[in-house]
Order: sequence, then structure tokens, then C-alpha cells
Amino acid sequence: MRTVRISLKERSYNIVIGNSILNLLGKFITRLDIGTSAYIVSNRKIKNIHAKALTKVFSRAGLEFTYRLIADTEESKSVEVAFRLINELARFDKARRVFIIAFGGGVVGDVAGFLASIYKRGIPYIQVPTTLLAQVDSAIGGKTAVDLIQGKNLVGAFYQPRLVYSDTRLLRTLGIRQLRCGLAEVVKYGIIRDRNLFNYLEKNYPRILALKEEALEFIVARASYIKAKVVEKDERETKGIRVILNFGHTIGHAIEAASGYKGYHHGEAIALGMLVAVRISSKLNFLNRGVGERIEHLIRVLGLPTKIKKLSLESIIKAHYRDKKFIGPKNRFVLIEGLGRTKIVENIDLAVIKEAIASRIA
Amino acid sequence: MRTVRISLKERSYNIVIGNSILNLLGKFITRLDIGTSAYIVSNRKIKNIHAKALTKVFSRAGLEFTYRLIADTEESKSVEVAFRLINELARFDKARRVFIIAFGGGVVGDVAGFLASIYKRGIPYIQVPTTLLAQVDSAIGGKTAVDLIQGKNLVGAFYQPRLVYSDTRLLRTLGIRQLRCGLAEVVKYGIIRDRNLFNYLEKNYPRILALKEEALEFIVARASYIKAKVVEKDERETKGIRVILNFGHTIGHAIEAASGYKGYHHGEAIALGMLVAVRISSKLNFLNRGVGERIEHLIRVLGLPTKIKKLSLESIIKAHYRDKKFIGPKNRFVLIEGLGRTKIVENIDLAVIKEAIASRIA
Repeated sequence: MRTVRISLKERSYNIVIGNSILNLLGKFITRLDIGTSAYIVSNRKIKNIHAKALTKVFSRAGLEFTYRLIADTEESKSVEVAFRLINELARFDKARRVFIIAFGGGVVGDVAGFLASIYKRGIPYIQVPTTLLAQVDSAIGGKTAVDLIQGKNLVGAFYQPRLVYSDTRLLRTLGIRQLRCGLAEVVKYGIIRDRNLFNYLEKNYPRILALKEEALEFIVARASYIKAKVVEKDERETKGIRVILNFGHTIGHAIEAASGYKGYHHGEAIALGMLVAVRISSKLNFLNRGVGERIEHLIRVLGLPTKIKKLSLESIIKAHYRDKKFIGPKNRFVLIEGLGRTKIVENIDLAVIKEAIASRIA
Repeated sequence: MRTVRISLKERSYNIVIGNSILNLLGKFITRLDIGTSAYIVSNRKIKNIHAKALTKVFSRAGLEFTYRLIADTEESKSVEVAFRLINELARFDKARRVFIIAFGGGVVGDVAGFLASIYKRGIPYIQVPTTLLAQVDSAIGGKTAVDLIQGKNLVGAFYQPRLVYSDTRLLRTLGIRQLRCGLAEVVKYGIIRDRNLFNYLEKNYPRILALKEEALEFIVARASYIKAKVVEKDERETKGIRVILNFGHTIGHAIEAASGYKGYHHGEAIALGMLVAVRISSKLNFLNRGVGERIEHLIRVLGLPTKIKKLSLESIIKAHYRDKKFIGPKNRFVLIEGLGRTKIVENIDLAVIKEAIASRIA
């Protein structure tokens, strides 16, 4: 078991990573002294697999609990779902000390965290992420949100959990495609902050894809550490530091949007977005070709896409400029100067961006 | 013009108090550099009175704006209204830098603040309170919330405004009953923290009720200062300090609830709740009778009720124990040992509470 501390003054918390540690969750909760009644937001599949084990864990710890199941799909990230859950939460909460557990993937974590942030002006919540993507990214750092028709994640809060509890054993229930999507974010951490992690991935990807315990634990702990350090320096994304986590996401989001959020999973779009960012970095002479080739090779052997299919250059560019993140500059990219070294660049020539995207279109 | 600073690290802001200062609001906003487009949440009456003046203010400052009107009644403090507004806000917000202005009473401030707290994980907002109650209490301190069927203020956030701008001239449009309700909270500040303010109220209440400029400015500034100091020490109500602001509110809320939130306005119920708290303080020998008599006299000359009408002791007691605020102790009261000196007492004998309430029933 490994512990990564995320230091945010009175909002500090631990990220606990280990294999088959679900049975110890009760002890961790008891130690936090956050309440006696758990409102568990989860999805049906996860509940079916783990309900029995969790019931044992909670009754041993003397904790009361109830489940609320939502689909772990973007459709659940709505104001309506949040509203329905909060009414149910209020009914569940009668002179008890209620806290929330997000037991699922990114959607469950986002919705449950948002719920925790607005109920009674904030009650404690715990993230128990069950996908690799959630373990290495979305469960950490307190970004919670739901969508509006006008855009994704438009309603939400920065609200930190009291614990992130990542049992890598849970990753065995993932499909290979979901696993690969999580790995895209791990590759990202290696590229932006940690050449050793990148080297590790290059050397050990077969062990990771084979779900070897110590390999999974290592990459989840390493990724958690990197994310924790970035969040510590820029909790509310106001200082231009947290933005480096968006490496590959600018064009990645555009690819997702252009495909109508069908066809590409988030991690796949991010893999492609990273390759585009690498190409732009090379074009602007920030990056030598060898690094770019290593990145492409790693993405390929992990089974992630390296070519954009069934989307036109124009549709991606159009989606890119609809992205709400540009106020002031025409565009803003996280680029790299080498493994572990990022550079924020604004107002890049549209021709350069187009060429980089086009180079990835199949 | 007076300025009270509320120091909360990066969430610090000014409370500006003055007579006929609305025309300077544009300058204050420009100086804050919080955006170019104002989404003004207000109510019809306030808009009708001030829209012309505000339009001038905003166009001079080069600010774009739009109004969203809600009724300044408890019914507007719903999740439905908040979500309707947030959808409208998202439509209004297109690559602009949007901020929110709460231009109205407590309900407008609560809803607008909550909106600001959850849109894009928090955008700037300004409180321009138009009632005395909002100027001295609800606009200050970052408590935002809407109601659920299960209880009031169950959904919300602690989210500080960037400026509180209290133009006492606006108080001229208040009915006398609304003015008195605000004064109940001012009396509260005198009782819990500031014997000089209490003395001032005793001496100057005719000037206050006659809306004399310098008297209004003095009490709003003084009350703002006291609230600011309390909030600075206990922003999120976790340290047992902010709770003293609930003096008179425990039984006050029970009276409001027992009357079905009809019959008594908040300030009136608080006035009665304070008298009950005074009686309990005396019964437990914390307080000498002279102080209690002065408090009752002040409440009476301000035109606030001193007797509970049309409510039974039982209904108030029942409402009191439905209050969600007791977890652990059977009850918790803010009592006083003298003007400016509070004492938190838990588990008071029910007989004492009943006697104190009964003594106020007409």
C-alpha cells in the first residue's frame, strides 16, 4: 500500500493506493471521523460486483449506508440527475452525520463530488475510483461538475474529497479499451512531468496491460503523485500551472466534440491530441524528432489510436474554436520541449495547427 | 462613504457603505477587473426604480449587462429557479467575461451567490443589497443557498462575493416593517458584540426610523464591521465562533417554522427569539435583569414584536426539535452574560426553555 499526500492546508488529504485494499476502507473512514451514514453513488455493474464485500466492510465499521445508482455515462452528468440525487440525499439524511462515497468511474466521481459540494454548503466525500482514468486523474484534485446543454462541466465546484482510495484490484473488471484510455493519461503525466515514468511505461507496458499488481500500483501511485503536486501549486486553476494537465486535451476535446462524443473515448482522443501537440512542438522547433517518435511508439504499443478516422480537418478545427477556453488569445496550447518539460504557447498560426492535425488524419 | 475590509486571504473583499453611492458602482467594478458583462439578478420593484440609473452607470463604465428578475420571496429560493437561471446565464455567456450582481434583498443575494458559486466552478459576484437585512447580514460572509422541501438552505455553498456595495439611500424604498426587520439584526449585533452600538440604538432610534442618512450609514457600517470580524475568524462555521450570529435565531427559526413562514417576518421572529434567549440567560443566572429590560425596551420602541401571537408553546417546541442543527447535544443556545458577551450553552433543561417561550406568548 502506498500513500500520496496532497497538501492543501485544511483541505489536505491522502490518496491511498494498493491492491485488494477494499476490505480496509472501513478503517480509513472511521479514522477520518466524517460521519456514520454513507450515501454511496455508484453504477449498477460496480455495485453488483462489490456490494457483498462492501456490506461486510461497512457493517464491521458500524457504518450505515445506502446506494444510489447512476449510469456511468455522460448523460448522467446533468443538473437534473444532480437535483434528483440531492433530494434523495436530503430524505436519507435525518439527524445523522452523512457523508458521500463516489464509487465508480469519472462520471460517478464528478456527480457525487458536486453533490457533496452543494449539500448543506459542503459535506465530506470520499473518492473510491474504479477505473484507471478516475484513479490517475478525475478522482484527484477536487474538480467536480455536471454539464449543461451549452457545454460540458459548466456547473460545478472546486471541492476536495477527504480521501481518495484507489484499489488497483478493481481495475480487473475494466474492459481493455477502458484500461487503455486510463493509460493515455498516465503517458501524459510521463510526458509533461516525469521522464522516469515515461521510461517505465516504455519498458513495462506488457506487464501493465497484463494487469500485474506491482506495475499497476506503481503507475497509479506515480500518476497520483504528479497530479497531487500540480494541484497543490494551483488548486483552482488560476495560476497557469494546472493548465499543463491539459496537454493533449485542446485538440483531444475538439476530436471528441467533432465526433459528437461518439466513436472516440476520452483517452483515445487525448492520445491523438498529444500526438498533434507533439507535432506542433516539433514544427515550432521546441522538440527534437526522437522524442516525438518515442511518444508515438508508446501510444501505439499501448493499443491507443495514432490516426484520426472518419473526421475531417474542418470539423475538428471548427470544434476547437467553439471551445470556451479562449478569452483573449486566439488559441492556447500546452506544448513540450522534451520529456518532462512543458511550454504554454498562445496564438499559434492556424496553418501550423492544421498541418499538425492533418498529419494525423488517416 | 465608509469601507469595511473583510480579510479572508485570497477571498478578501471590501464592504462599501454610503448614501447615494449607486452612481459610483461602475468605477468599483472596473477597478476589480472581474469582467465585462454583468448578469444582474434582481426583482421587478428594484429594477423599476433603479434601472435607469444603473443603465447610465454601466454604460459609462463600458459594461454590458442583462437583468434576470426573480420574486424576492422564499419561493424563489428553489433548486428549480437556480437551475433555470444557470441555463440562462450559460446562454448569456459567450466568450465574454461574465460576473454576477445580486441587486435585491436576501433571497436575491442567496440565489445569485449560489449561481456564481457553481457556474464554471465559480465566477465573481457582487452584492448590492437593497434591504437593511441584506446590508447588515445576508450580503456579507459568503453564505449562499436555496431550499429543498426537506428544509431551508439545504443546498448551497460558502462562496464570498468580490464586493458588497451598500447604498443606504436604497433603504428609502423599504416599507417600515422591512426596515424594522433589518433593525432586529442590528440590535442583535449590539447585544452579542458591541455595547456602544446598543447604546447608539437606544439613543438614536428615532433618527434611524426617520431614515436619517448619517444614522443609517453608522449602523450599517458598524453591523458590517461586526459581521466581518466574526466571519474572518470562522468563515465556514466550523470553529464555534460564527454560531454567535445565531443569537435569537434558535427559537426565532422555530417561531417562523411553527407559523408556516407566514405571519412573522424573519426579523420579527428573531426579535422574539432574542427575548426568549434573554429570558433563558436570566433564568440560568448569567444575566442581570436590567440588561434584559433594556433589550426589551429597545425592541419595543423599534416597533418589533415582544409577544408571540397565535402560536402555541407546543408548536414552537416541536418546530425547535425538528431543526436540523442538533446532532449530539439535545439543544444548543447562544446566550448572553451581558451586552457584548455571549456564551454557548448546550443541553438546557426543556422546562427552562418552555418557561422562557411561554413568558412571551400573548
